[in-house]
Amino acid sequence: MLIVGERINTSRKLINEGVAKRDTAYIQADVRSQVDSGADLIDVNAGSRRNSEVEDLLWLIEVIQKALPQARLCIDSPNPESLKEVLSQVEYPPMLNSTTLEKSRFEAMAPIIQMRDCDIVALCIDDRGIPKSVEQALGNAGRLVSELERLGMKRERIFLDPVIQTISANTNAALMVLETIEGIRRELEGVNVICGLSNISFGLPKRALLNRAFLTLAMKAGLNAAIVDPLDKKLMATLRATAALLDQDPWCQAYTAAFREGKLET
Amino acid sequence: MLIVGERINTSRKLINEGVAKRDTAYIQADVRSQVDSGADLIDVNAGSRRNSEVEDLLWLIEVIQKALPQARLCIDSPNPESLKEVLSQVEYPPMLNSTTLEKSRFEAMAPIIQMRDCDIVALCIDDRGIPKSVEQALGNAGRLVSELERLGMKRERIFLDPVIQTISANTNAALMVLETIEGIRRELEGVNVICGLSNISFGLPKRALLNRAFLTLAMKAGLNAAIVDPLDKKLMATLRATAALLDQDPWCQAYTAAFREGKLET
Repeated sequence: MLIVGERINTSRKLINEGVAKRDTAYIQADVRSQVDSGADLIDVNAGSRRNSEVEDLLWLIEVIQKALPQARLCIDSPNPESLKEVLSQVEYPPMLNSTTLEKSRFEAMAPIIQMRDCDIVALCIDDRGIPKSVEQALGNAGRLVSELERLGMKRERIFLDPVIQTISANTNAALMVLETIEGIRRELEGVNVICGLSNISFGLPKRALLNRAFLTLAMKAGLNAAIVDPLDKKLMATLRATAALLDQDPWCQAYTAAFREGKLET
Repeated sequence: MLIVGERINTSRKLINEGVAKRDTAYIQADVRSQVDSGADLIDVNAGSRRNSEVEDLLWLIEVIQKALPQARLCIDSPNPESLKEVLSQVEYPPMLNSTTLEKSRFEAMAPIIQMRDCDIVALCIDDRGIPKSVEQALGNAGRLVSELERLGMKRERIFLDPVIQTISANTNAALMVLETIEGIRRELEGVNVICGLSNISFGLPKRALLNRAFLTLAMKAGLNAAIVDPLDKKLMATLRATAALLDQDPWCQAYTAAFREGKLET
């Protein structure tokens, strides 16, 4: 499992304050704790700060790379133009979050994706909106992969996001996503599947419970990357336990190592 | 999900003491708490008390039925003879735990199963021992169902147990069981699948973490009954969250009711 740490997002109050105050130490401590907790990439999102998004992203990229010269970044913006403006400042090949199959979005993202070696998060959404069936989601997935391959991307750089809706609005939303993930794995060999988890529980109580059980189910279906808060110890413990059960952690070596490091919170 | 509460087992120290001292109040309080926590059946096992198993079972059945006249019991013994001796004292149609496909065990259980209307737990073990492959487990499952049907049992009264081994001894043990459960569901329509969960984590630290994630995976595979401690609040919360995700609890009605009753422990 590839873990994308989601904390550096200005929609979070404390992160927004840290960015507004240019609090280098605060941001650097946060990303260090994410990496210590298991993050493979650091997501960086300043989309809530519309008037200063680009300069905020540039500042964040600089201070994060200073603290963690080896860090891989996931640059996250709803604005293709913002991604384009900051891309050259990212040291290691970044992950770009995200494109969709919507015509205008894909057309705006296409030249950016080609600017340099990168991973791309691609949401299975087209101009009809969020898929209403597994077939529609898989159709979008297949077209996204074709279009991205046409731009020269290799499948191992593509991270399809099946787009999660809450079970409080659609009682079979989780089953649909699981079937979509299984379908992507079956039909699109070599492509990665990523998602944020927490939408699944929107509008319900004790969301952490639903998010953790959904992570377990999604990993079994074939999810191999997740955008999560790596400081959520119980979620990370569930992830490690699930990897052990699915033989993704042969002989539970990583699981028992995490236990010895005090990282398995029940 | 059918919940079989596993606490009344004399291999548990406090239960053993309660049975030895004929502590009616203690046993009755325990079973009441199990039912309050969601148990559909109460498993009753005195197998560790070899010299007095039958009289202990008879006493337990009496005091439990006095406390909970509506309770359904799962009479659990390694000794067919013991099951036979207590069977007539069980008020409602009991679940019998268990038979296997081992020749001597099945032959001893066959007449007992036919004594009265009952559910039967049937472990997918034959004289070769615990199955070494999914094919072998499914072969045993199919033969068990045929043999039990020949005795006049209906499929809805049969609870196949795929037999769980720990992932610490066999790194793909969980995947094998999940595939077995899926196979039973696919090939043996109408039959139930039951298991105890905790063997999966034997020999590993933080077993509760593995047991909870495994419950989630097993429910997705098709498990529809489980032998658990219903007072394990986190396990029961995981069960309720998983049922909501799998649309076994449409619109999360039971999940949100459990939340209102303070039963969802994260």
